Amino acid sequence: MSDRETRFKLTLHYDGSAFHGWQVQPGQPTVQGALEAAVSRISGAHRTVTGAGRTDAGVHATGQVASVAMPGEWTSAELLRALNAVLPHAVWVRSAEAVPAAFQPRFDALSRRYAYRVGTAAEAASPFHRRWCWPLCRPLDMEAAAVAAGTILGEHEFHSFAKTGQPERGHVCNVSAAAWRPWGELGAVFEISANRFLHRMVRYLVGTMVDVALGRRSAGDMVPLLQREKGDSPLTTSPPAPPGGLFLTAVEYPAPTSDAGSVKQTLHNVK
Amino acid sequence: MSDRETRFKLTLHYDGSAFHGWQVQPGQPTVQGALEAAVSRISGAHRTVTGAGRTDAGVHATGQVASVAMPGEWTSAELLRALNAVLPHAVWVRSAEAVPAAFQPRFDALSRRYAYRVGTAAEAASPFHRRWCWPLCRPLDMEAAAVAAGTILGEHEFHSFAKTGQPERGHVCNVSAAAWRPWGELGAVFEISANRFLHRMVRYLVGTMVDVALGRRSAGDMVPLLQREKGDSPLTTSPPAPPGGLFLTAVEYPAPTSDAGSVKQTLHNVK
Repeated sequence: MSDRETRFKLTLHYDGSAFHGWQVQPGQPTVQGALEAAVSRISGAHRTVTGAGRTDAGVHATGQVASVAMPGEWTSAELLRALNAVLPHAVWVRSAEAVPAAFQPRFDALSRRYAYRVGTAAEAASPFHRRWCWPLCRPLDMEAAAVAAGTILGEHEFHSFAKTGQPERGHVCNVSAAAWRPWGELGAVFEISANRFLHRMVRYLVGTMVDVALGRRSAGDMVPLLQREKGDSPLTTSPPAPPGGLFLTAVEYPAPTSDAGSVKQTLHNVK
Repeated sequence: MSDRETRFKLTLHYDGSAFHGWQVQPGQPTVQGALEAAVSRISGAHRTVTGAGRTDAGVHATGQVASVAMPGEWTSAELLRALNAVLPHAVWVRSAEAVPAAFQPRFDALSRRYAYRVGTAAEAASPFHRRWCWPLCRPLDMEAAAVAAGTILGEHEFHSFAKTGQPERGHVCNVSAAAWRPWGELGAVFEISANRFLHRMVRYLVGTMVDVALGRRSAGDMVPLLQREKGDSPLTTSPPAPPGGLFLTAVEYPAPTSDAGSVKQTLHNVK
């Protein structure tokens, strides 16, 4: 075996309903496990595949970014074809590109974007939609949802909207976009971009906003929830929205400088 | 058990990749089998569920029509909710309506409509699309495909485009619509309406038109294929397109007369 290796950046789609999340777990199908098995099969070597975000069980991606150092000689086009030939159909590599050896998809990311689909129409329960949305199948007050989403923009303390604390890094996130838009005639999609996300943060945000849009609580609850450390007040978030509606749609990296290789911005919306 | 029964017309979505086709087969999951099991579970009685079209293994529906005579007292709304509560998620009843006892979804149909999705973009191989299209992932000459589709309109002899003959009913079908339209940015959809369809006819038509659109054969082949009995000439169709791209999207019935009950037209496009 040659000592030569090349690091590649992979942009991925996956259907999270087929997996117990991103991260390798013994005895469970995971996205990382499927990718590492595919790399092993085409190269004969075990290589760790690192991802920009550790999506939970049932969460999907149309713009996850991963990285792997491939042993031997591979072009981007060869690697793309070989991985897609051996991966299960629930994972698809959209692009592969050679990147500098120091590329770290998680720590180099400037921002991530998620989309969360809520199905308000009865047809959201159809087999062609229900695994990839929250099939509520009832109308929402989207004006109230828009007011709630507007409070999320900017820098806030998101401890209340996290499953578990990350005390070592704090709970402040800077949200650069947060808005609802139509999901065809089926419902609405919440799109959010931020420099970082806490565990289950998007699902807690959507769960709380959907309760606002159902008239179960006030959009005014958002502001104190976004200002206080967890436990400061009796106010709590609503339960998290189910995982099947959530898509990691893009990870943004610094634009390459002339000598920094070919790391490019990727911004891809969920369709 | 009361002697009273009410016949209902059901309009269905199903993901054919979960089933060995429509028709009940011992030991295999089928759509008809799933519906009859659901009816048995909610009513305690075995009732045959008849369908407008016997779709093959792997073929989907967004407008299949079925009929069942329910024992006892059921409103349409109750039946809709009860069936959707017990059916597997791969089948969804979009609507239920009471119809005259003589309603026969297969023989009363005036026409059926099918849609066939061909994925020309690379993204058709994504897990969010590939089970519900033909993931060719290469460009097609859609002008040539349009010329080929244009030859299908009208009344023709479709024996060449059928898997098996139906000598007792002949092979003439009257096609009232046959055209390609864009499938978003992912590819193209062929839509066809006719008074009747022979076995695998849409898949043979699409397989042959795709060969035309790939430059492998001439659109001029369509005309002799549509005029001759099978075996009249050395010209044959291309292999049938795979089942996963095909959707039964609508079945049309006569408009109800004032005293004929509530059978309504249904025309629903695949999204």
